[in-house]
Amino acid sequence: MQDDPNAGNGPASAGDVLAVFRSLGPQTRAEVMERTGLSRSTVTQRLDALLAHGLVVPAGEQRDDVPSRGRPAGQFAFHRDRGVLLVADVGASSLRVALCDLLGTVGLERSAVIDVASGPRAVLDVVDGLFRELLDASGRPAAAVHGIGLDVPGPVDFAAGTVVSPPIMTGWDRFDIRGWFAERYPCPVMVDKDVNAMAFAEHRAAHPDVDALLMLKIGTGVGSGIIAGGRVYRGADGAAGDIGHVQLDTGDGSDPPLCRCGNVGCLEAYASGWALVRDLRAAGRDVQGVDAALALAATGDPEAARFLRRAGRLLGGAVAEAVSLLNPRVVVLGGQVAASAGDQLVAGIRELVYRRSLPLATARLQIVPSALGTRAGLVGSALLLADVVFAPSRVGALLAG
Amino acid sequence: MQDDPNAGNGPASAGDVLAVFRSLGPQTRAEVMERTGLSRSTVTQRLDALLAHGLVVPAGEQRDDVPSRGRPAGQFAFHRDRGVLLVADVGASSLRVALCDLLGTVGLERSAVIDVASGPRAVLDVVDGLFRELLDASGRPAAAVHGIGLDVPGPVDFAAGTVVSPPIMTGWDRFDIRGWFAERYPCPVMVDKDVNAMAFAEHRAAHPDVDALLMLKIGTGVGSGIIAGGRVYRGADGAAGDIGHVQLDTGDGSDPPLCRCGNVGCLEAYASGWALVRDLRAAGRDVQGVDAALALAATGDPEAARFLRRAGRLLGGAVAEAVSLLNPRVVVLGGQVAASAGDQLVAGIRELVYRRSLPLATARLQIVPSALGTRAGLVGSALLLADVVFAPSRVGALLAG
Repeated sequence: MQDDPNAGNGPASAGDVLAVFRSLGPQTRAEVMERTGLSRSTVTQRLDALLAHGLVVPAGEQRDDVPSRGRPAGQFAFHRDRGVLLVADVGASSLRVALCDLLGTVGLERSAVIDVASGPRAVLDVVDGLFRELLDASGRPAAAVHGIGLDVPGPVDFAAGTVVSPPIMTGWDRFDIRGWFAERYPCPVMVDKDVNAMAFAEHRAAHPDVDALLMLKIGTGVGSGIIAGGRVYRGADGAAGDIGHVQLDTGDGSDPPLCRCGNVGCLEAYASGWALVRDLRAAGRDVQGVDAALALAATGDPEAARFLRRAGRLLGGAVAEAVSLLNPRVVVLGGQVAASAGDQLVAGIRELVYRRSLPLATARLQIVPSALGTRAGLVGSALLLADVVFAPSRVGALLAG
Repeated sequence: MQDDPNAGNGPASAGDVLAVFRSLGPQTRAEVMERTGLSRSTVTQRLDALLAHGLVVPAGEQRDDVPSRGRPAGQFAFHRDRGVLLVADVGASSLRVALCDLLGTVGLERSAVIDVASGPRAVLDVVDGLFRELLDASGRPAAAVHGIGLDVPGPVDFAAGTVVSPPIMTGWDRFDIRGWFAERYPCPVMVDKDVNAMAFAEHRAAHPDVDALLMLKIGTGVGSGIIAGGRVYRGADGAAGDIGHVQLDTGDGSDPPLCRCGNVGCLEAYASGWALVRDLRAAGRDVQGVDAALALAATGDPEAARFLRRAGRLLGGAVAEAVSLLNPRVVVLGGQVAASAGDQLVAGIRELVYRRSLPLATARLQIVPSALGTRAGLVGSALLLADVVFAPSRVGALLAG
């Protein structure tokens, strides 16, 4: 992408100064001047505001990996322990929550079994109960919470912070998640799709220098998260990456299967965890859920093997189209099905992508397994939340207000 | 998308100061300080360098839409007539070139009939002949050329400035276009896909506030250009937007048609200008090219009507997948076939998109015809080139060197 011709517009705010500390670690006043091009008086003014609010501290006074003894005098640092972030990675049947520092580093964790279709109030009660446990365990009051982040298995209007027309999250449609938390915590609330959090985490953890990345989640359902220009790409409404509901025509003349979304013939209806369970049951296997179906597949069951071969081919077709449209450098395969049966899927995916997409798009393409596995959602939510909470525009408003 | 936490890093350069003038027009020194947050001494230093190189001038001394009489004293402006940009919009069978000011505003134009498959040297000779005509006509020497931009109907490695494995541009594969021009002009050379230039032009001209836009070109071939975050999204290698070669299975049991790219069953092999010509000829119609085929279709020929109905449906399926992945706010339909038979195509496209993509992605989606028509490529190339030539990093290097 070309440089942004508007990059020079707008005065560099306290938030921009804070961003230097967040991304580069402890800095002297002179280093901040050098990196921002701001005058000494502007830097001093911004720094004073950040110091007054406790977001920046003299470097010796904050916990860090580097021992404070021996640190050059006059350094300042982001005060990552000034408060905490709370995040929840909500799945269809379980959730995981964590208490994080202000950089988004995951600390204490808790988890619970839930049914996401029991609705937002029931699920958020569980989330908040675990949040309270984490705050108690760490001796932090609710007032120390600087931000709350949720990632969920459904379409999200990111700007509004609501789930919209979700196939499986019964009762969540446009539920006011922010309002629910606002009664309990005085801080911003971010809601995102699980696949966006996963994509962001994989990018930061394993592929930080890659400009374009596609995270394909093959779990109970199928979805994808897109990194473009190093950031999460959400599209105009937050609906980007909806690869699970592209419609296939398999060309074999069979009736297309009904999908959870109400349409027929979606990729997910052929090649997901729930479709595997459905097909194994239809073949007389007594499997109670996705884990059991994957366990049966791992024993070499021929019906499961047939399903996975076909799923690999169909996923491959969809990934080939995504590669043609998005030209990612890396495709990351994550989710429960990919973790358990990735080897059986990846051959089909590779074959279709290399056969169908342009040589220019595949010559340097990597197709790799998830580096973070089941932790990707939680880790990514925390990192995304830290960026939202400390976005330069928000920090500016915070210090002004 | 979230704010960039790294936005504050790196000193604001002379290029950033120039960007203020380029995007906002004439400014006083105080206004530049206010908009950049830079100190008076830094602004003065940057401005002196820009004045010394003639890229910025006291506002009264440059041509502009606003009369210089009555302009507030002490204003400075980007010197858009300090030099010129030369651009060429290269098609399969014709090309158009223009002389532009440094903002990328198209001025004098010339065009020629070519065969792009005659190879780069033959085509570039024509381009350069017309460039010389434009320079002569405007009384400008080659030394006044600040940048050269080409857009072409094939895959482009944007960083390298080369065409890579193009289906129809015989002889162009990795040809050193920059080297060819370097012997003739002492300036940067940009090469891009035609659809990227078209997408950029439509965005700037008709949808400047839209964050995510998909430009679908249905001409002799089929391709797309993507705007994400207000910029051209090219993917990791410049191959993004390759929608013409996603593979369809139409499910009707027929053998998939051979595509120009060497694969079979590509969208383009069913639903492009060249496929229309092929099918009309197979049905006994004596059409010599895409224009003739479209003229026949305009008379109500039943074979052509059948083709267009099917093409609309197949294009609609592919656009639905692109909408699901990219969630654009606007889909622009351009190219020769869309211009001539757009009404017949758009019903099929609309139907498939609204049936298949998420409600969240379609509720505010607009599907609209091109605002710039056949001028989109040329206009977009000039705007893209201006951004490349005056990218802050390049301007900094230019002034330092």
